[in-house]
Amino acid sequence: MSLTSEEVVTGGNDPSADWSRDEHQGELLGPQRTSTAAVRESARLAKFHVPEIVFGPGSLTELGHCGLRLGGRRPFLVTDPGLMAAGWADEAVAHLRRAGLRPVVWSDITPNPKDHEVQGGYERYVESGCDVIVGVGGGSVIDAAKGVAILSGNGGRILDYEGVDRVVQPIPPTVMVPSTSGTGADVSQFAVITDTTAHIKITIVSRTLVPDISVIDPRLLTTMPPWLNAATGLDALTHAIEAFVSRAHNPLTDMHALHAVELIMGNLLRTQLEPRDFGARLAMAQAALHAGMAFTNAILGATHAMSHQVGGLLDAPHGVVNGVLLPHVIRFNAEAWPDRFVALGAAAGLPTQGVPAYEVAAGLADLVRALADDVGVPKGLASLGVVEGDVPVLARTTLKDACMATNPRLVELRDVETLFREAL
Amino acid sequence: MSLTSEEVVTGGNDPSADWSRDEHQGELLGPQRTSTAAVRESARLAKFHVPEIVFGPGSLTELGHCGLRLGGRRPFLVTDPGLMAAGWADEAVAHLRRAGLRPVVWSDITPNPKDHEVQGGYERYVESGCDVIVGVGGGSVIDAAKGVAILSGNGGRILDYEGVDRVVQPIPPTVMVPSTSGTGADVSQFAVITDTTAHIKITIVSRTLVPDISVIDPRLLTTMPPWLNAATGLDALTHAIEAFVSRAHNPLTDMHALHAVELIMGNLLRTQLEPRDFGARLAMAQAALHAGMAFTNAILGATHAMSHQVGGLLDAPHGVVNGVLLPHVIRFNAEAWPDRFVALGAAAGLPTQGVPAYEVAAGLADLVRALADDVGVPKGLASLGVVEGDVPVLARTTLKDACMATNPRLVELRDVETLFREAL
Repeated sequence: MSLTSEEVVTGGNDPSADWSRDEHQGELLGPQRTSTAAVRESARLAKFHVPEIVFGPGSLTELGHCGLRLGGRRPFLVTDPGLMAAGWADEAVAHLRRAGLRPVVWSDITPNPKDHEVQGGYERYVESGCDVIVGVGGGSVIDAAKGVAILSGNGGRILDYEGVDRVVQPIPPTVMVPSTSGTGADVSQFAVITDTTAHIKITIVSRTLVPDISVIDPRLLTTMPPWLNAATGLDALTHAIEAFVSRAHNPLTDMHALHAVELIMGNLLRTQLEPRDFGARLAMAQAALHAGMAFTNAILGATHAMSHQVGGLLDAPHGVVNGVLLPHVIRFNAEAWPDRFVALGAAAGLPTQGVPAYEVAAGLADLVRALADDVGVPKGLASLGVVEGDVPVLARTTLKDACMATNPRLVELRDVETLFREAL
Repeated sequence: MSLTSEEVVTGGNDPSADWSRDEHQGELLGPQRTSTAAVRESARLAKFHVPEIVFGPGSLTELGHCGLRLGGRRPFLVTDPGLMAAGWADEAVAHLRRAGLRPVVWSDITPNPKDHEVQGGYERYVESGCDVIVGVGGGSVIDAAKGVAILSGNGGRILDYEGVDRVVQPIPPTVMVPSTSGTGADVSQFAVITDTTAHIKITIVSRTLVPDISVIDPRLLTTMPPWLNAATGLDALTHAIEAFVSRAHNPLTDMHALHAVELIMGNLLRTQLEPRDFGARLAMAQAALHAGMAFTNAILGATHAMSHQVGGLLDAPHGVVNGVLLPHVIRFNAEAWPDRFVALGAAAGLPTQGVPAYEVAAGLADLVRALADDVGVPKGLASLGVVEGDVPVLARTTLKDACMATNPRLVELRDVETLFREAL
C-alpha cells in the first residue's frame, strides 16, 4: 500500500544525493508535472506488485499446471451459476483434473457478494480439505474467492478486515480466471464485500490479496451478456482514469493507465456492436489487465468511493454506477487539478495541442458520457433506484471509503452530496 | 518460459470461438503486424512474471521490511568490494539490523561471476544458517546471489543448471537491490555464470529465479564509475531492442521495451555528461526496470548469445560487448524482418513516416553506434582482445546459447562468423 505516511520518502540518507531538491525529477517521471508539489510527490516510493500473468486465447488450458505449480492437490473452485451454464466451470474442472488435481466446486454466490455468502464458502472450504483457491468468473466471484481465502488464513468474520492492511496472516495460494473485461479483481489487492446489515460495501485492501497467478483467457468474454460487457468495460475505464489522477500514481502505473484508456476508447463500443470481433475482445481483455495493474498500485478515487455506497444500498451493478458517476467526478477533480487530465484526453483521442487543461478534462467527461450512452448505460442514478432522500446517508458513508484517500482533490461532505445530486 | 512448443496454443477447445482464424488479432496486439504468420504468432500465450517492485530514491530504507515480509531472520547479503567501499553494503546492513534481522555479508565475487565463486558462496550460506538471500550490487552480484540460491534449494553444481527450466526445486526467498542501470538481473528469470573450465558463460533460465522483491534505489547509481554506467546503459538498450524483436515478444512486453528505448535514448548520455543530474539517473533506473520487465518475459536474441561467448572467453564487460555487437545484429535481423524496427526507431526519436522499414532499422543501428561512441565504447571487439582466430570457437558456442532460440531471424554458423568478423 502506498497510503501510509511513513512510506513517503522524500530523500535518502546519503548526503551526496539530495533527490528531494532536484528540479528535474517531475519532468522525467511523468507528463504534466511542473509544480514544486509535483516534484515532491514524484520523490515518493513507487510500489508495483502484480500477479504472474498468463494471457491469451486458450490460456485456460494452463489452469491445471498453475494449480500444480502453487503446490495444490485439491483446488477450491469458486464460480457462479452463469459461468456454469456457459460451460466454463466444466472446462476449468477438466483442466484441473487432467493435471491430477481433485477440484471441489462452490458456486453459491450472487452479484456483489454478501458477507454471509463468504462465510458459507469458507465453511465449505474447511470441510473440503482444499489447499488452493481458484476463482473462475467476474469481479463478484473473484472477490468472494478472496473473501474465502482471507477467512481461511486469518479466521474471524469477513467484515473485520475492512480497510487497509488488516489482513495480516498469509492466505492460501490463489489463481484467478476473469470472465469479464473488467473489474481487475484478478490482479488487484482489493476485495469488495457487501455488509448486508449496514447495506454498504466494505473495501478490503491488502497486498496478500494480489492473486498468485491471473489466467486471462479472452474466450470467456464471449459469453458475457452485453449489459455486463458494457458495465465492466466502463469499470475498467474508471480504474484507468482514477488511477492516473490518483495521489498515489507513479510512473510505473501511469503507463498502464494511459494504455488502458486508449484500448477501451478504441474497442469497447465495437465489442457491443460486433460481439464476435475477437480482435476487439482481445484488446478489451488487455485493457482490463492494464487498468487493473494501474489501480491496484495507484489506488482509486471518489468515483469508486461513491459507487461502493450505491452498490451496497441497491445491489446495483458496479460498472454501471461508475459509468454514471465518472463524468461528474472528472469535472469536479479537474476544477482543482486539470493538468493530469491532458494526457488522459490525448490517450482517449482528444486534441490537446493548445487546448486549456480544463477544457480537455471537460471533453474527456463528455466522451465518457457519450460512450456510456452508446453502450446503454442510464443517464442518472435515479433510474437505478437512488432517490433524493438517500443522498445524505450515501454521502456520509462515501467519506469513510478506503478509495477516498487517494482522490486528487480534497472532498468534503457537501461536495459528495452535490456530486450525488448532479448524478441523480 | 515461452520457449517450449507445448506452451504455444493457437486456439482453445471452445468451438464457438476460433481465435486462430481471426484476422484482427495481429493489428490489435502490437504494431507492425500484418502477415498471416504474425497473426498466428500473436495467438500464442503471453506470459508476464515480474518481482514486486519498490522504486525510488530512498527505497533502500525498505530493505529490512522486505526481508521480514519474506519470513527471513538471517539474510545472506551478497555484495562486492566496490559496493562495500561506496558504503551501500553498510547502509543495507544497517537497514536489515534495524528491522531485527541478523545479516551475514559475503563479497568474494569478481565481475562475470565464476562457477567456483558461486560454490564458495553456497558453502558460506550453508555454514551461516541464513534463510533469505539479499543481493546488493550490479548484474554480477545478483547473478552470483541467484547461483547461491539455486544450489541452496537444488544441490549439485551450478553448471548442471545450464539451459531452460532445469532448476526444479524451490529456492530461498530473494530480494535484489541493483546498483547499475542496468542489467535487469534484479527482475529477470536469468542468471549468467562463467564456466572457468570451458571459458564460456552459461545461461540459466528458470521462473524460480525471478526475485521476490526488487528494491530499486537510484541513489546507488551515483557511485558507479562512468565506464560501468555506459556499459550497463547499453546493456539495458540491448535488452529492450532484442526483447521487442524477439520471437517471444508479446503486447505486455512490447510496451515496456519501447518505453525503455525512449528513456535510454533521452537520458544515458546525460548521465555521462552530468553525473549529478538526478532526473536523468532516475530515468535510467526506470529504463533499466522497463527493459528488464520486457526481456525477462520476451527473452533476447543473437546479440546476447554472441556476447555471452566473448564474456566467457575474455572476462570482458558484458554491456560493452553488447554495445559493440548490437548495431551489427540489428542490421542482420532487419534484412529479414525489418518491420518490427519501425516502432523501435520511432521510440528512439527517428522519423518513420514514409521511410522504408529497413532504412529505419539501419538508422537505429547508426544511432546505437553513435551513442556507443558518445559514451566511450570501443568500435570493435579487437580492442577488447578478440582475435580472428577466436571467431570459429565463439561462433560455434554462440549457436548453443539459450538466447538464440528467440532471435527473430534464423542464424546459421556462417552468419555468426560473419557477424563476429564485421564486429572485430
